[in-house]
Order: sequence, then structure tokens, then C-alpha cells
Amino acid sequence: MPELRRDPIVGRWVIIATERGKRPSDFKMRVPAKKAGFCAFCNGNEYTTPPEIIANRPEGSEPNTPGWTLRVVPNKFPALRIERQLNTTGDELFSKMDGIGAHEVIIENPDHYLTLSTMPLRSVEDTLLAFHQRISDLKKDSRLKYALVFKNEGEAAGASLEHSHSQLIALPIVPKQVQEELNNSRHYHEANKSCIFCDIIRHEINDRTRVISENESYISLAPFAPTSPFETWILPKDHESSFVPDGKLPLLAQLLQKTLKQIDKVLDLPPYNMILHISPFEDESNEYYHWHMEIKPTLTKKAGFEWGSGFYINPTPPEEAAKFMRESGI
Amino acid sequence: MPELRRDPIVGRWVIIATERGKRPSDFKMRVPAKKAGFCAFCNGNEYTTPPEIIANRPEGSEPNTPGWTLRVVPNKFPALRIERQLNTTGDELFSKMDGIGAHEVIIENPDHYLTLSTMPLRSVEDTLLAFHQRISDLKKDSRLKYALVFKNEGEAAGASLEHSHSQLIALPIVPKQVQEELNNSRHYHEANKSCIFCDIIRHEINDRTRVISENESYISLAPFAPTSPFETWILPKDHESSFVPDGKLPLLAQLLQKTLKQIDKVLDLPPYNMILHISPFEDESNEYYHWHMEIKPTLTKKAGFEWGSGFYINPTPPEEAAKFMRESGI
Repeated sequence: MPELRRDPIVGRWVIIATERGKRPSDFKMRVPAKKAGFCAFCNGNEYTTPPEIIANRPEGSEPNTPGWTLRVVPNKFPALRIERQLNTTGDELFSKMDGIGAHEVIIENPDHYLTLSTMPLRSVEDTLLAFHQRISDLKKDSRLKYALVFKNEGEAAGASLEHSHSQLIALPIVPKQVQEELNNSRHYHEANKSCIFCDIIRHEINDRTRVISENESYISLAPFAPTSPFETWILPKDHESSFVPDGKLPLLAQLLQKTLKQIDKVLDLPPYNMILHISPFEDESNEYYHWHMEIKPTLTKKAGFEWGSGFYINPTPPEEAAKFMRESGI
Repeated sequence: MPELRRDPIVGRWVIIATERGKRPSDFKMRVPAKKAGFCAFCNGNEYTTPPEIIANRPEGSEPNTPGWTLRVVPNKFPALRIERQLNTTGDELFSKMDGIGAHEVIIENPDHYLTLSTMPLRSVEDTLLAFHQRISDLKKDSRLKYALVFKNEGEAAGASLEHSHSQLIALPIVPKQVQEELNNSRHYHEANKSCIFCDIIRHEINDRTRVISENESYISLAPFAPTSPFETWILPKDHESSFVPDGKLPLLAQLLQKTLKQIDKVLDLPPYNMILHISPFEDESNEYYHWHMEIKPTLTKKAGFEWGSGFYINPTPPEEAAKFMRESGI
């Protein structure tokens, strides 16, 4: 019997279509092997990107020259632009504003053939630190309200370049998806005097069927009502509203890379999206919202039913997905 | 300069990325030519589908035999099932219910090689009438609250069979996406004493830049803040909250097929999704919600940014899309 499940955070329903019950081998989406050829993100080709914003490079090395281990550069084809006043126009029906914002690319490692799951753990740590540094810097721009960090791995997941990279888009509006999570978490906190994510973590640690892995500070789990098969969340076990991993960075990097290795092993190198959800700049430190990462392998298509309803059909129960991940041997 | 636009109905923002400004020829997504070979939806293969629910067939002809012009059958692999009590369990964090519902397939025409844009207009009319008949019938089941009719054309848009068909999923819950449209339309009506869709239609007819086509009873237009390039809506010009096209069916079929022909011509046979949004069963006749069809060519991918933010990046301003459609010569 299929099951309807309600996401506790945003109230969205998903259909867990048990009768379509898909095992990992039923999904045939594999990121093609990375190809040789000119790549703007490779060592030696720094001149082809806009000038770097920050980089990890040997002391004394000039910006935009080879030898770096991580670079952050503006997106050459930005969805939004930083240089303008923020003008709002329109009326109740048709409001619009200038597309102010930042769109940056985090090139995680100079090696063209590595992915976040195969690169040295140190690069994963550096990448997470770069997220934090860029968020902290962009926060100073009073026109901006939110920074969304995300990663698309594989063309099917929306990546236009195959060299492993993450992106950051800073926005003059708190995005709707985040605002819904914030609103509902705030209501939950008002009613229950606790953080909904903390309560979920407590429940999951006790129940264990959806827990995938954990270390001293972080936990990875399959959410109760995932929109995609094998969707995985990584959260700090203690309440933290904004992304400041501090001294715990190595533990976060370790769990993130372990999760991606599990996904690669179980699903045979699928395309995926990764998203970092944090509190908005203006309300960074609060008791109701808990930052987290969401990793969604791209295994199903958003089709007419999903577009029209906001419902999702997920053919793999999260309890089964978590079991496959736990038993992957990684 | 990119532009941020707010959808007047649900308040979702989209980025109209003018600098990526894509013309129709920049999108290279074409539905592959339909292949010969066994097809469960073809004339003569009626025995391979579950028994038909309704069909248009010559008088005296037996159900589930050849000779029909349209068939409605249960989906062989339904996302939801009709035969059960509706049980709800769980608590505030983890609520779930049995996957009660109906999942039906409307086989629009027996010819394997036709699409909704190339089949005889009469088949389009019959298809729309079948939507109405099935909705009216399912409405009698008190466990069900909503019926979503949709169509996926092309594998990239989620179609698993290439023979042209639409689907209907009836649900025990009003889906979130529809509920948001309903809530916001109701608020707008409370504040303005008018239907937001009627006001938009009035504005668009006056402005004309986003109007694509119209006839006596229906209008097609590019919405102000579309999530996808070339997204097109079809609406009745007069206020109608539920889908009862009555004597106007030929006019609706004509505008729907014209729109699909325009899309096929301008974008060279793209995959697409079509969605019918109506009022919920329990509130069929109201002054605030206006039924409509949304057609979304599958030209962009939902990637990390869209998943994480609920924002969409649309590289084609709707005013340009509408102009291409108007000037398609169809």
C-alpha cells in the first residue's frame, strides 16, 4: 500500500510509492567520466575566470596565478549582479526589483578529475571554510538578506561545467523555500518551546531506522518525508542556527565526504544536488531554526504531477534508503 | 540587468536572467520521434491495460476491444490506490496516511504517432470532456478532496510511455501548490472584492505584451513571473472556478491545440508538462479562484539553487516568449 507522509518542517506531502519500490540498481543515472580538454577551473587557466575573490595559495603567490588549492571567483554568467542600487517597482499584481545579488563559484580543488567524494579530506574542509568566509563577508552588504550555498554534480543535476565546484547566490529576499522552513519552525517553537530539528534528531537517534551515520558533533539521516529517493540530511547534533562550524570543521568534512562516498557506492556515481540551509542574515542567532545540509541524488524527474501539486512521488522509502547507506561498507 | 519578479498568485520570486537571454534556438530539447513496436495504449492491445473506466467507442462495441477513439483506464502502476479505508496515523512530527486515491490514464487517441498538437481537433475535445467526466465522477467519493489532471509529453518531461496520454490523480488532501494558490486568491478577494485571475486577465488584455492568443471565451498568455521559459497559461476570460467547459468545449480545444502547435513550432517539438488547476471538490463554486491550464516546456533543469530556494532562474523574459509565440505564424 502506498503511503502519504507529511514533511514535519514545511508540511509538504510526499507519496512513498512502495509498490514501485525501487532498489538502488533500478536507478540508472551515472555522471559520465570527466573528460580531458580545456577547463576554465583547472590550474593554469586562472586568466579565463573573473578575478578571484579569495583563494588558498602559497604565501607570496600572486592572485590569479597557478599553485592554488581552492579558489572563489565571481560567476562569469551571474544570475544576479552586485553593482547597482536596489530598486523596487510595480504594484500588488506585478512587483519586481532589480536583480541585485552575488553569484560566486567555489572551485574546491585544482584537479579536474576529483569530486567532493574523492578529493583529499583537506579540500572538503577548505570548501566548508570558504562557504563560511564568503557568507560572513556578504552578510556585511545591507542590501542582501540571505546566502544560498549549493552544489550541482553532473549535468543531469544542472552542472554546466564538470570540474567539481560549489556555488553561492546571495539574495535581496529570503527565498520562499527557506521562509517556509523558518515560519513553520518558529510556530513549532512557539507551541513547543523547542527547535523542531532538535526534536527530530532526538527522535531519530532513539528510533535509529532513518539514521545513516553520526560522529561526535554531526548526524546524517534520511528524512521522514523525502521528495527524492536517497535524500540525505546532515545536521549538527546540538542546536546551531547559523553555519559556524568552528573547531568542528574536520568532523563535518568527514561526515559530508563519508555521505557522498556512500551515495556514490550505493547508487553508482549518481548526479546530485547539495544545499546548505542557514538562518537569514538578520536573524542569525535564534532558538527555532537549525542549519543543515540536504543532499538529493537526481534519480527522478519533476513531472506534471509534481509541478502541479507540489506533491512528490518517491519510490524508495527512506528507511530502506538509510539501510542501504548504512550497509554500504563505508 | 537581471530582474526579480514576484508571482502575483503564490508570491514566489523568479529571476529573469536577461543577460543569459535565451532565444528559442538556444534550447536543444526535442522529443525523439515515436518508435514502432509493441505499445499497451495502441488499438488492438486493450487486453494489456487494466479494464477501461470509460471509452468512446461505436455503439454496441464491447468494452476493452478495438475500435475506440478514446479510453480511460486505471494506471497499471498507480501512485495511489482506491480500495481501502483512509487511515491517518502519526503525531505532530511524523504524520502519515494510507495512500488512498485514484490514478487514471486518459489515452487521447488510438494512433501511436499523434500528439495532442497533431491529432484531430475532435480528439482534443474528447480529451477535455473526459477530464470533466472523470473529475465529476471521482468527486462523488467523499474520501477524495482534489483531482489533478496533468500530461507529460516526452521522456525528459517524465513520460514513461510515448503514446500520447494524460493522467489524473485524485487525492485525499488538497495539494500544497493548489492550497497556496487558493489561500492567496482568497486573501486577494477579501482585500479587493475581485478575483485575482480576472484582474490579471483584464490587465493583460489591456497591456497586450504577454497575451499570446484569444478567442471568444478563452485567452492564452505568458504569465508575469514564469518559472520556465515559454510557460503558457490558458484561462477562461469570464470567471469560472471549476472546470465545466460546457458548450464552449470546441473553443477551448481549439486554443489548447493552437498553443501546443505554437510551442512545437517555436521550440521544435520540446518535451512539456501540462497541468489543470481547478477548485477543490468541497468548494467548487466560488468567487476567488479561477481554473486554468499551465503548460511548461521542459527546457531548464531544477538544480540545487531551485531546490534550495524555491526561486527559479528563467533565461527568457515572458514578453519575448509571447512575441515568439504570436509571430510563429500559427
